[in-house]
Amino acid sequence: MKRLLTPGPTPVSPEVAAAMAAPLVYHRAPAFKEVVLRVRENLRWVFQTKGEAIFLTCSGSGAMEGAVANTLNRGDLAITIRAGKFGERWANICKAYGVQTHNIDIEWGKAVTVEQVKKALDENPKARAVMVQASETSTGVAHPVKEIAALVKSRPDTLCVVDGISALGVMNLPMDEWGIDVLVGGSQKAFALPPGLAFAAVSAKAQSFMEKSDLPKFYFSFTKEIASQSKGETAWTPAISLVMGLDAALNGMKAEGLEKLFGRHKTMANATRAGVKAMGLELFAPDSPSDSVTAIKAPGIDGQAIVKDMRDRHGITIAGGQDALKGKIFRLSHMGHVDRFDVLTALAASGDVCTRLGARLDVAKGLAASEAVFNAQN
Amino acid sequence: MKRLLTPGPTPVSPEVAAAMAAPLVYHRAPAFKEVVLRVRENLRWVFQTKGEAIFLTCSGSGAMEGAVANTLNRGDLAITIRAGKFGERWANICKAYGVQTHNIDIEWGKAVTVEQVKKALDENPKARAVMVQASETSTGVAHPVKEIAALVKSRPDTLCVVDGISALGVMNLPMDEWGIDVLVGGSQKAFALPPGLAFAAVSAKAQSFMEKSDLPKFYFSFTKEIASQSKGETAWTPAISLVMGLDAALNGMKAEGLEKLFGRHKTMANATRAGVKAMGLELFAPDSPSDSVTAIKAPGIDGQAIVKDMRDRHGITIAGGQDALKGKIFRLSHMGHVDRFDVLTALAASGDVCTRLGARLDVAKGLAASEAVFNAQN
Repeated sequence: MKRLLTPGPTPVSPEVAAAMAAPLVYHRAPAFKEVVLRVRENLRWVFQTKGEAIFLTCSGSGAMEGAVANTLNRGDLAITIRAGKFGERWANICKAYGVQTHNIDIEWGKAVTVEQVKKALDENPKARAVMVQASETSTGVAHPVKEIAALVKSRPDTLCVVDGISALGVMNLPMDEWGIDVLVGGSQKAFALPPGLAFAAVSAKAQSFMEKSDLPKFYFSFTKEIASQSKGETAWTPAISLVMGLDAALNGMKAEGLEKLFGRHKTMANATRAGVKAMGLELFAPDSPSDSVTAIKAPGIDGQAIVKDMRDRHGITIAGGQDALKGKIFRLSHMGHVDRFDVLTALAASGDVCTRLGARLDVAKGLAASEAVFNAQN
Repeated sequence: MKRLLTPGPTPVSPEVAAAMAAPLVYHRAPAFKEVVLRVRENLRWVFQTKGEAIFLTCSGSGAMEGAVANTLNRGDLAITIRAGKFGERWANICKAYGVQTHNIDIEWGKAVTVEQVKKALDENPKARAVMVQASETSTGVAHPVKEIAALVKSRPDTLCVVDGISALGVMNLPMDEWGIDVLVGGSQKAFALPPGLAFAAVSAKAQSFMEKSDLPKFYFSFTKEIASQSKGETAWTPAISLVMGLDAALNGMKAEGLEKLFGRHKTMANATRAGVKAMGLELFAPDSPSDSVTAIKAPGIDGQAIVKDMRDRHGITIAGGQDALKGKIFRLSHMGHVDRFDVLTALAASGDVCTRLGARLDVAKGLAASEAVFNAQN
């Protein structure tokens, strides 16, 4: 038995798999036009925006690049929160485009504080954007996006640009209400699709930046894609089978409703954290944890061995640490098409593997603590 | 009964569909590494190159953008062959990146001549690239790539950049032998995959240009992708399910062999053209036709009505004309997972529809002429 519990890709639901396996529809046929228009409306619903929302055929990093290339100008200054691999990505994209960055470097495993962002904004009044992750997948940290957006909202010349790739559909990110200007998503996280599609939504303020942006863009032109998708078309040939899957995934999310969707993820995250702690493991990011993925310190053993043994002994694929965290943590995902029994499985298997590798844990206590969280919900 | 006979997407084979429908593999797992390494070698085989070949998660236009952004510099001059919608795309991408273009404008439906390219090169000795389509999908024309590459080969400061999106796997494009420097492909054509993956291969000469290129690139960085894929990894999360399908598709192409693959497509193209002419229809591009798709003049009736009636009456999706050719032509694809009976079907159905719309055709004569081509092969 094989199980996939990585923080992207996440398991694909049977409904989505069936939609993707259907014979291809021509992307210029009337039947596909209807799909594009419905997907567009449903993306707006997930993004909680009256602004524009589009899908792109690329992985999340492509939409992040689009967020930079479509809104900024050569020589602009952007404030980036570098608190993990994906925070670094914002800075790297800016660098590739000749956008200067003021980087707020945060110890991996911690969240940026609102005060740090306020200070950076005060010291860099010309900053054209603040770029942050709602959920930093590499460390399992959630940044205070609501408060950061509030700081930026009052500044007419600054955008709040949020990577919501592993947060959308997991955590409440009401784009319009909070004042997020660019929000980026990816298909292989809470949407429970294979990778290959990314999403982007832009506020009216971001659209005014887009009109003046002078950075080169072609494939990732948001303007071209918005114009096309508002007519039910796409600027370029889209990943048709993934779009059909997206349509099914969004229908499923709508049927569940945002409140239940976020509630389910919060409970799974709480249960994972409770279980981890009760069995004697330590959370890597205890203070501001993401509800998408839980990062756990390898208990005096090699984190890569945990990942390997989870796969070899139990057929469960999880993620280890990346870059500086390689071997030091392992990560259990609880987003997308997963439920309480997947959480139980992840805890039981990782507890077993860590024990076999020499850690002294009380796995049964962990499982009981996790179940108690779920039972308290019912 | 529904049939797909558009020049991208093309029908997906059952083997490829099964590979894509399997549960997702984690893209950082050892099992996926093997797939990436095998795909890389097999792409080199299709591209007929000892140079580097990569896949990208995007549609073909993304790889075209990558061809420009990775090799050229701001202010460079490129010669583009604008003989259709995709020729225009080369010029549009250059424009987006501040690359000057000398555009050889060709009447849609005609191929560029070698003399025209030679003249442009002689008049623009500083041109850093010549950009052309091996098969211009919008008009059904094949350009003389072999001869153009030969002209460019002797010029150390000029690259031959070829869009082979609808040509790779259809027509012989021996990259190294002919001296093509950048060759771009797409998944939804002869590879018979859904759209969502593109391919690019680069010669040693192109790689020396890449080292000096100053245009912004991040997601489409060929250098980063080559470094990753040569280790069995990818720079960004790839469209995993499509990559699994690509692996299956390439295995199928290898089993058939390049000679048979090209021969099958040539015969289908010849049979289509013979059938079209014999029933009394007129080829839109009789002089230098592509073996991927046959463009046919709408016989005194609205070409869009032919497309619509093909779909509504016979369940067959074909493509009409694009932009200036809208309503004037219709296009029958014969690439990928199709065979002689698909050609027969396309001819019978389009002959029937044109007749019902008022054209005077001898459809039976067309079918007989088409069958005669196939029978002569056996």
